[in-house]
Amino acid sequence: MKSADYPEPFRALVRELRRLPGVGPRSAERMALWALEDGERSSALAEALGEARAKVRHCAECGFFSMTEVCDLCADDDRENILCVVERATDILPIERSGAFRGHYHALGGRLSPLEHIGPEDLRLEQLTSRLERHVFSEVILALSTDVEGEATSNYLTQLLASRAVRVTRLAQGVPAGGGLEHADELTLARALAGRRWAGEG
Amino acid sequence: MKSADYPEPFRALVRELRRLPGVGPRSAERMALWALEDGERSSALAEALGEARAKVRHCAECGFFSMTEVCDLCADDDRENILCVVERATDILPIERSGAFRGHYHALGGRLSPLEHIGPEDLRLEQLTSRLERHVFSEVILALSTDVEGEATSNYLTQLLASRAVRVTRLAQGVPAGGGLEHADELTLARALAGRRWAGEG
Repeated sequence: MKSADYPEPFRALVRELRRLPGVGPRSAERMALWALEDGERSSALAEALGEARAKVRHCAECGFFSMTEVCDLCADDDRENILCVVERATDILPIERSGAFRGHYHALGGRLSPLEHIGPEDLRLEQLTSRLERHVFSEVILALSTDVEGEATSNYLTQLLASRAVRVTRLAQGVPAGGGLEHADELTLARALAGRRWAGEG
Repeated sequence: MKSADYPEPFRALVRELRRLPGVGPRSAERMALWALEDGERSSALAEALGEARAKVRHCAECGFFSMTEVCDLCADDDRENILCVVERATDILPIERSGAFRGHYHALGGRLSPLEHIGPEDLRLEQLTSRLERHVFSEVILALSTDVEGEATSNYLTQLLASRAVRVTRLAQGVPAGGGLEHADELTLARALAGRRWAGEG
């Protein structure tokens, strides 16, 4: 009896789908099955990949996605004179959608990670300092991850910007909105306690 | 101030990625970012989609994936004379890899679902009865899902096959291997109890 396996083009598709972030072996198989069930689906996906690759680039200023050299966000003169630094271009719209910030953005394109060999030279730091030289922002908000690598990157940026006459702030850490305390880990609780505010404050 | 959004080709790619099973809005954005970070990645994925679509088909017999009319599994004469019926073509290899079954397979291509307008005519039932007419299997194992729609499909198949001189069986239901009882829901525990076996049995 022969051992069974998928045909090679199916396995190749599963391999490519597994490279997508957050996709494990079983979901990749389900996705491949889904793509093969209907030829229109996979050609639409393949076409969207090609179109996006051909037409979308990173904004030369902030690193957000754009079809032009400078994106709509950077070209918008009505925005506040505050710069919010994020790790990835996909972090920008969630902040924008929160409605709590109406300034400019700067995506680093990642964060410092010795394990993944990502050093300062791999981030969009020159673009950041160049922007700060060309334009005086009233504040730079560091909106990076709160895990070890994000914290290290925030600390690095704080030192990098220390000599500049700009106020550098970080996002508040605490318990998430709409969640019970039982879901918060000890470090989150510790930070929520350390950052507690008067009950009368906005 | 303008409201910000991704460029249209990026949103189109996110829309296509969201159609993949198990992918929500945030993961689709992460995947699109990942695809755009490196042109090689998205072209490899687009190419794999095209190759698989062009070369892989469903086996005319069992519905598994194949590059030929009849798949390797169906063409294998050394297999036992038992037929295992599953819902999807991707259910076959997990059973094969369990090492506990060495017979033939039949993928229905889905299951009965009134909510999704999937009736008996949408499943590979004619192919199943045709196979049973052409070949006498010693047993048909129904290895479908254990949720409501899977159970309904198993019941439908049991009735459909009742008039045939073939033994129809179902997979055992019970607590999963390697898991604590605290993870098993009440229905699973009830079925594990109802199906309990003498401690001495294999």
